[in-house]
Amino acid sequence: MKLRQVTSSAPGKVILIGEHFVVEREPAIALAIDKRVYVTVRKGVKGVRIHSSCYEGEVDLDLNEVEGVKGYFRAIFNSLAEYREIPPLEITIRSEIPPRYGMGSSAATAVALTRAVAAFLGMELDKEEIAKIAYEAERMVHGSPSGIDNTVSTYGGAIIFRRGEGFLRLNVDFSPVALLVAYSGVPKCTKDLVSKVKELKGRYPTIFEPLYHTAGRLAIEAARALEEGDFTAVGELMNINQGLLSALGVSTLRLETLVHKFREAGALGAKLTGAGGGGCVLALVPRERVEKVLMAIKPYSEWIAQVEVCETGVKVEGEGV
Amino acid sequence: MKLRQVTSSAPGKVILIGEHFVVEREPAIALAIDKRVYVTVRKGVKGVRIHSSCYEGEVDLDLNEVEGVKGYFRAIFNSLAEYREIPPLEITIRSEIPPRYGMGSSAATAVALTRAVAAFLGMELDKEEIAKIAYEAERMVHGSPSGIDNTVSTYGGAIIFRRGEGFLRLNVDFSPVALLVAYSGVPKCTKDLVSKVKELKGRYPTIFEPLYHTAGRLAIEAARALEEGDFTAVGELMNINQGLLSALGVSTLRLETLVHKFREAGALGAKLTGAGGGGCVLALVPRERVEKVLMAIKPYSEWIAQVEVCETGVKVEGEGV
Repeated sequence: MKLRQVTSSAPGKVILIGEHFVVEREPAIALAIDKRVYVTVRKGVKGVRIHSSCYEGEVDLDLNEVEGVKGYFRAIFNSLAEYREIPPLEITIRSEIPPRYGMGSSAATAVALTRAVAAFLGMELDKEEIAKIAYEAERMVHGSPSGIDNTVSTYGGAIIFRRGEGFLRLNVDFSPVALLVAYSGVPKCTKDLVSKVKELKGRYPTIFEPLYHTAGRLAIEAARALEEGDFTAVGELMNINQGLLSALGVSTLRLETLVHKFREAGALGAKLTGAGGGGCVLALVPRERVEKVLMAIKPYSEWIAQVEVCETGVKVEGEGV
Repeated sequence: MKLRQVTSSAPGKVILIGEHFVVEREPAIALAIDKRVYVTVRKGVKGVRIHSSCYEGEVDLDLNEVEGVKGYFRAIFNSLAEYREIPPLEITIRSEIPPRYGMGSSAATAVALTRAVAAFLGMELDKEEIAKIAYEAERMVHGSPSGIDNTVSTYGGAIIFRRGEGFLRLNVDFSPVALLVAYSGVPKCTKDLVSKVKELKGRYPTIFEPLYHTAGRLAIEAARALEEGDFTAVGELMNINQGLLSALGVSTLRLETLVHKFREAGALGAKLTGAGGGGCVLALVPRERVEKVLMAIKPYSEWIAQVEVCETGVKVEGEGV
């Protein structure tokens, strides 16, 4: 029995502690959130066609390695083609996460797409394989990604991740706090910022070596504080992290404005999340203060969302025959 | 022959790299500036009377240790009394540095006052003794000062300083660059911020230990860059320093706004200077861009000054018989 269509979804993420530093193998903490990317796969007529708000067109599987969005989709299908021949497919992508907000939409898309195609073709892929395929796609758009985005999107929950070593799931009760995300009005560009940071780090190795250590220890402290439910400490550690990111040169006045307005309004901590240069600010807010903080931030951001940590990673939403 | 009056002066300062971190024995860089405090000493009628814009009144030498402005003046005269009995004096203080801007007005006052009284009384005090007396006064208003302010005010020039170890004079040609200082509109309070930072550091020793190392290495890199005339690097290092200060929790939105506006306008680097929480932002600007940068910053600060590094520390301006 052939499936007529499959829909799969995967969560976006926020980085709580350690973006940028994670690229250089320092531990970092990511949270899967309840904003997902949904991918529906149907039988196509010819080749693989993608329909999404960001990209509309065919995936040319015969091209050599190409960077950017085309290379991204091509990487996924080339990986899948190692398991099974890819028949003509129509792919529809619907995202609850705006692109270039630093909330992991590209990783979630790759994860959900991989899962959906695999399910449609009746392939057995475990989570490790899905995360790996998504990582190869991420490389086409993000240069040298750490792997934290595709990992948290695949597995869900709150994780502490170390490049090349894997991750641990954190056991956290988030009920006392809310996560608010506010857009700075400027899209982020991970690839450019990662290379800018790399260049700066290369110029001052004696300075950045202990700074990166600092960031790694911050993540370990934050993991402990999260599991103990000590959200005052988590907030403080987020604030320290914002300073370290500012030292890397990835903060901006728009981001600082949101960070400080969040703190003034009663957030326990606030920091940029994702690559910086733009994108979003993440704030940790006691639930009873959420309304007050939202009101205070409204004049400073065109897009503010309250997100919840989502334990469910990638999943098949529905199959139709 | 008795002197009728003596006027002495000492320079204010800006911290180029390493405020706060210097308290914990990391190296830091300070620059004496061409804004000075002038102290005139005349024969008085009874006791020691102070006339200044900040304090008007008698110095009670018999009181036990008192903190604050009274304790500050008392500390100076008690130190001087170990060398010579203090006769009735009238002291007039005139400062070119607004108080609580983070530009070392209190250290410059203590240094100039010590020098003027010593000259008036015909005492031989070397610079080391002057700096030490000023340090004891600083303790009354700043808690546990590093000693960098009184040192640079006494000796002048550009120095790299390490608490408990002393200082080295840097040989820098500042002619290609200007230093601009803009007030945030909020007075700083060194003592409160130093204890706030100490408390935060005590809570997360594993994080702050490598962060403080980072700051120390920053100062060493900056000293090298200054002596090589590599002001692009000095600016970058100032920007990194601003991030580290933000990690300590001493930056504010007003300070960040000035920092980012300076950078956008063409400064090589910009950071808060002094204790933070308020006070001023210091920017390093190529001389040819000074006018443009001044224009760009004007809407954001009520007080902006261009300062020059001043090689002359404390000196006697004039004596009258």
